[in-house]
Parts: sequence; C-alpha cells; structure tokens
Amino acid sequence: MVNAVFFDLDNTLYDTKLQVDSARRNAVKAMIGSGLDVEFADAFKRLNEVVSRHGSNFKNHYDELLKSYGMATEEKIIAAGIVAYHETKKAYLVPYPDTIRTLLRLKELGLKTGVVTDGVPVKQWEKLIMLGLGDFFDVVVVNSEGGRVKPDPTSLIEAAEKVGVDPSECMIVGDRLDRDILAGNRAGFTTVQLVKGHQSVPRDTQEEPDYMITELSGILEIIK
Amino acid sequence: MVNAVFFDLDNTLYDTKLQVDSARRNAVKAMIGSGLDVEFADAFKRLNEVVSRHGSNFKNHYDELLKSYGMATEEKIIAAGIVAYHETKKAYLVPYPDTIRTLLRLKELGLKTGVVTDGVPVKQWEKLIMLGLGDFFDVVVVNSEGGRVKPDPTSLIEAAEKVGVDPSECMIVGDRLDRDILAGNRAGFTTVQLVKGHQSVPRDTQEEPDYMITELSGILEIIK
Repeated sequence: MVNAVFFDLDNTLYDTKLQVDSARRNAVKAMIGSGLDVEFADAFKRLNEVVSRHGSNFKNHYDELLKSYGMATEEKIIAAGIVAYHETKKAYLVPYPDTIRTLLRLKELGLKTGVVTDGVPVKQWEKLIMLGLGDFFDVVVVNSEGGRVKPDPTSLIEAAEKVGVDPSECMIVGDRLDRDILAGNRAGFTTVQLVKGHQSVPRDTQEEPDYMITELSGILEIIK
Repeated sequence: MVNAVFFDLDNTLYDTKLQVDSARRNAVKAMIGSGLDVEFADAFKRLNEVVSRHGSNFKNHYDELLKSYGMATEEKIIAAGIVAYHETKKAYLVPYPDTIRTLLRLKELGLKTGVVTDGVPVKQWEKLIMLGLGDFFDVVVVNSEGGRVKPDPTSLIEAAEKVGVDPSECMIVGDRLDRDILAGNRAGFTTVQLVKGHQSVPRDTQEEPDYMITELSGILEIIK
C-alpha cells in the first residue's frame, strides 16, 4: 500500500529537456536576427558543443560561440541571445499537462506528497514557485551538489520520516535510473520511472524500477 | 539646429525607479505570502535599508532581511521574493508611453539618434532589447564602471563623431544633472533634463540644463 509519493523535479514534474532545447534554439535565432551572419543549424550545433565543454552554469556561452567563428564579443548580439534564452526558458517552465491533476488526485486520496531533488536549494524552489507548485507538497528536500544527492538514499528516508510514513509505503517517481530509481530501491521505496519519448534516458545502469510510466498520471493506476 | 539626439537609458527611456520600487514591494508581499510572518511596511523599509547598505548588486538581500528578524535562511521564502522581484521588474520594463512615438518622430525628421549610458554593456543591451528599443538607434555607447562614465564627456563626443554630427548640433537628454547634463554641457551639446514628478533628482550640483521637460516628447517642441 502506498501512503506517500515523492517526486524528482526536473524532467519529472515538467519537461526540462524541451525547455532547454527550445531556449537554445531561440537564443541562436535571436543572435542571427541581431546580426550574427551564420547558418542556424551550424550555430545551434556549436552552441551545444560550447555548453557540453564548459558546463551549463558557465557564464559566457555566447561569447564562446562568437569566438568559434573568429568574432569578437558584440554586446548587442550576446544580449539578444541571453534575452531570448531566458524568455523561452520562462515560457516553457510549465508543469506537464497532467502534473497538477495528478497531484490533486493524490491529495483527494489522502496521500502525503513530497519533492526530493538535487541542485541549488533557492533555484529549485524558484522553479517550484514559477511552476505554480510551491504550495503542493508536504515536504521539499533539495540536496546541494556535494551533499547527499541521489542515488544516496538518505534524503528519501528523511523525507519519509518527515511525513511519518514507513519507506515500505513510499513511492519515488523520477526519470533517472542511476539517481532516482537507484536511490529509491536502496531506500526500500516503490520505484517508478517516468520515460518520455524524446528523452534519451541513460541506460548505463542495471537498476530496474518497479514500474515504468510514460505519463505522470500513470502513478494513479499503480496506486489503485 | 539639432541634427542628433542622444539619450541616457535608465529613468530617461523608461521608469527605472517605479520598476525597482514595485519589484521590491512585490518581493516583500510574496515573502509574507510564503510564510514570512511580519508587517509589510516594516519589512519593505528594512529591505530598502539592506539594499542601501549592501548595494543593489549584492546577491543576498532577502537572506539579510530574514536575518534582521533573527530568522535563518528559508529557501521557500527567499525564492518567493526572488521570483516576485524578477517578474515585477520584467513587467515594468516598458518604455514611457511617449518613448517610441518620440523616437519615431525623430526618424521622420531625419535626425540621428543614440544612447549613451553607463553600466555593464551586455546588461544595458538586454534592457534595450527587452524594452523593444534594440533596433532604434544609430549608435549605442555603454561605458563600464571605471571607464569614461558620465560626466566625462568623451563618450558623448565619440557618439557624435560616429553619426557624423558636430557637437554643437547634438542634444543629450537625461535625468541626472551631475551626470548627463554636466557631460553634455562639457561636450558642447544642447542639454535637456527629463524631470519626472516621483523622482528626487539630486540637486547637489550647480549644473544647469538648457531645457527641462517633464515628458520625453517635450524634446519635439524644443527641436522645432
């Protein structure tokens, strides 16, 4: 019997991959529209390479993109990219169509709910608030980098304690086998992997979830 | 005869003070709505004090606000403030009602236009783009902190050269006597101060503008 459901945040309650991909595309388009005289597909490929090389928290992706074309920094073009990126990210920061409906149904069923996610705590909270989900959960745990991030099961077990439900009656829903599912299996939770078609979920682990779903609302069938 | 008009950006093409004041108010309201149990007026006053003390580019205004109440950092409350602040800033980042009309009229009259502003170049360009003004000007000069910021007249003289107009035929429009007007007088420009009712323009300088206006479109009368 499931009495508490915990969710990963990114790619579980909303579509991070679509958000970031769209934001990068629109950034490149805006830069071209502001005078960057290059071919879209090539520039988009180069931007993705820059992000892979320097990490997503690097501050000068667009300067590096210009540099890859032998161009000096041009503030108007850089700013056009930054504005388009942030506006697109904001526009795509919406829950999956069935996220809110599913969470409300869990409330009606009397289940406890929580989020267990990794990242910068204030940033993860900003996302929850902008998603309109800031008030939905009984507990939100954010593990900072270097802390007890998943697959460490500690934060899952603590979250279960906070809502007063035994791990054997807890469910974790997430997209990543090597993080969410592994942590959940270690914690003794029922584990559910959300697999979306456009995601290339890393299969570099033997970890198996108890269930696989393609839509978040799929958990309602499992709980029944 | 005026053949080129240069504008300061902040508080000249749009209302920065209203923007920041509204953003701070909404940040405090959102924090209270997220569980900060304090009185609005008192918290708003404290937040303004925190910003005065630490500068507007300080990253932890809201943590300091909580600290002033003897509270520890609480990510949900901090994030609520940050989200409300940025959403309000964005919503208020619009030109004055007569800004675009005035700029278009200058185009029709065949005058050159430019922006001469101080700040982080990419940030100032982001504002111009979000204001919808990124493509309006023949020249945009942004002086970084520590560079030749106003009242140094160098950037005004360079901007005049770039559009090929003699300083005696150039106008500078800005809100600050100690920066825009002083720089303009030194450069030999016609100087116009934009004075908005709610602004407390520092009067700690003897500098006098050639003209004072209360609406940006007032320059059209002067040019006539």
